[in-house]
Amino acid sequence: MMRVEIINTGTELLLGQVANTHLAFLAQSLFGLGLRVERQVSIPDGAAIAGALREAMARADLIIVTGGLGPTSDDITRDAAAGAFGRKLIFQSKILDGIAAKFARRKIAMNDLQQAQAMVPEGGVALDNPNGTAPGLILENDGTVAVLLPGPPGELRPMWESEALPWLRKKFAHRLAPAHEVILRVLGLGETRVQMLVEDEVKALGPVEIGYCARSGEVDLRLIAPDENLARKAAALARKKLADAIYAEGSETMEQVVVRLARAAGKTVATAESCTGGLVASRITNVSGSSEMFRYGWVTYANEAKMTELGVPAGLLEKHGAVSREVVQAMAAGALRGSGADLAVAVTGIAGPTGGTPEKPVGLVYFAVAGADGRAQVAERTLSPNREIFKYMASQIALDLVRRALG
Amino acid sequence: MMRVEIINTGTELLLGQVANTHLAFLAQSLFGLGLRVERQVSIPDGAAIAGALREAMARADLIIVTGGLGPTSDDITRDAAAGAFGRKLIFQSKILDGIAAKFARRKIAMNDLQQAQAMVPEGGVALDNPNGTAPGLILENDGTVAVLLPGPPGELRPMWESEALPWLRKKFAHRLAPAHEVILRVLGLGETRVQMLVEDEVKALGPVEIGYCARSGEVDLRLIAPDENLARKAAALARKKLADAIYAEGSETMEQVVVRLARAAGKTVATAESCTGGLVASRITNVSGSSEMFRYGWVTYANEAKMTELGVPAGLLEKHGAVSREVVQAMAAGALRGSGADLAVAVTGIAGPTGGTPEKPVGLVYFAVAGADGRAQVAERTLSPNREIFKYMASQIALDLVRRALG
Repeated sequence: MMRVEIINTGTELLLGQVANTHLAFLAQSLFGLGLRVERQVSIPDGAAIAGALREAMARADLIIVTGGLGPTSDDITRDAAAGAFGRKLIFQSKILDGIAAKFARRKIAMNDLQQAQAMVPEGGVALDNPNGTAPGLILENDGTVAVLLPGPPGELRPMWESEALPWLRKKFAHRLAPAHEVILRVLGLGETRVQMLVEDEVKALGPVEIGYCARSGEVDLRLIAPDENLARKAAALARKKLADAIYAEGSETMEQVVVRLARAAGKTVATAESCTGGLVASRITNVSGSSEMFRYGWVTYANEAKMTELGVPAGLLEKHGAVSREVVQAMAAGALRGSGADLAVAVTGIAGPTGGTPEKPVGLVYFAVAGADGRAQVAERTLSPNREIFKYMASQIALDLVRRALG
Repeated sequence: MMRVEIINTGTELLLGQVANTHLAFLAQSLFGLGLRVERQVSIPDGAAIAGALREAMARADLIIVTGGLGPTSDDITRDAAAGAFGRKLIFQSKILDGIAAKFARRKIAMNDLQQAQAMVPEGGVALDNPNGTAPGLILENDGTVAVLLPGPPGELRPMWESEALPWLRKKFAHRLAPAHEVILRVLGLGETRVQMLVEDEVKALGPVEIGYCARSGEVDLRLIAPDENLARKAAALARKKLADAIYAEGSETMEQVVVRLARAAGKTVATAESCTGGLVASRITNVSGSSEMFRYGWVTYANEAKMTELGVPAGLLEKHGAVSREVVQAMAAGALRGSGADLAVAVTGIAGPTGGTPEKPVGLVYFAVAGADGRAQVAERTLSPNREIFKYMASQIALDLVRRALG
């Protein structure tokens, strides 16, 4: 059994200014290789890294260090690792050239402090960083491997996926026994409801480990089996039980599903948002290739905007209020007309913390999906009164209605 | 100086199923007492706690342990702590009576496993848990204090605030010396540039600890000083050096600054987005009270939408392309006209991964802020080719231009 430890460096972690998102990301990914993290430690920037590395080297086969690879004075992970592994640091002009090219591309002057990032411990492997300047590093010694990754998540994650993970997979191929995991992403059913629907029957199939990870309004159902056949059987059973409450599998997101389905159907989608304030459009446009199926979006936050941009009649707003079935339908119809899209989704609700009434409380939200065929689907929900959670949940339900209309 | 360490127990943390929210919560609270966490470690449920406690006791004056106080077989923090401090466990019937009363209130039958929670190490202080069954514990030995807290955040946080924190404040009153911290949030200057501008001169003022936390395109500069006067002087100097590159202080976000400034000036802002796809609008509407200053937003992803919704002339799009100074200005002007707002911000760029050309590479983006006074500000940047990072950086720069126009 391989022992894995993670060292997260960063004074901001120990001051409580930033949450540690690296541990969950790396642990989940390592689990996919059949590896479990046995210990994780957070230490401040600076000298503590040397001691933490020494302690981890005495115990672990694989050590992953995050942070401290940057160019400033408190970034000493590179030096500490070279020391712990007894290696000299060697300047690699190719790395500095790459950093210089990035600065040139962004038209920013480079300064001498950047040089530190081009130093590589002798015998170490430098990992390319397309999203930043500091390369990652891999060092090996007597069967102990250390992987050093940059701290910013936007740099760490792509580097891990495209450089570190393939290296580890190759290096430890003979020692890995990956478990077979299926993740089914469910919207609209609570955690206990999902458990009641699947647990007993799945467990009856064999030694399947079942996990539930609940988030706002949704649940990831994780099925882990020792062999592929059992994992496949368990997943098939769960799919049958949960049916179309499953919106995605694995790491695919709701917006990726929507963009994929729309492109496959050759359909375009328009958005008309009030309370979600552009979040539905922003999530769609996070997906590469979305320009094929998304062309028009409106954020009609004020009543006047709903009238002038989407043609919602003033009388409808007066009679039913902006948060109503009637207005959300008129918004969707207006977006469909204005965009010429095949589908339009509209959202209007009360994000809070103010603006609620006894009849229309904070968290109330209406959705409509209108199709070019004249059909419209309307839904009403009452979601979290926390503003950001409310917006996320509302955007998720809006996208799910589009998914179902496309499906 | 008191040494503080935190031990978080929980297999789910090391499988990456749950993020560690205890560390940030406790660290922020401790910082308010003038205490800094020097090390944090995550270990699985079960036997590892004994070794982790021994290691921490060899170094720390104050150890905070979370989790492992429940009634099931893998909850052994209480036993391990009693062992490490050399204490017998003593049954306290008062605690079991309290647990029994909670079960009775919820009309659930109590089982024998609950007894374990009524065991208190000799000489220890039990902390009341109004939100669960497991009491917390405080143990002392030779100047080392261990505080054991239950794992569920809904139990840990109230217990910390109402029981543990007052105890610690009283116990260590004579040893506490709160540090003074200022965080300056900087956009548009690299980490090394910030260091070169401030480090030497700030250090010359006295014992100021300087930290840099870099994210995509921005840096948080952290100044920590032992007394308020020095912190104030250091912050004043850094503010002078970094000037209007500082967009916020403390934990305020860019969107909060924009909403605050617009409301204070009684001005409204409209958005016209292409490559950011609604993210600028969504970030503005994350802020409570934004409906006072934000009423209209457009996501004109297709050229046709730029023409029909914002009145961008077809000839301009043909001649200069959608990603150009001319088009971004026309977008901002169209949004200003259509919304009647005091300011309109427009963004158009190439988010990638496809769509780049040698003249207009992926990452190129144009911004315009148009004011009701007829003045317009245009900016050009080349940002990360990673789609989500690109969108975030572009939204940040768009909001920053609004901030500067309002400031």
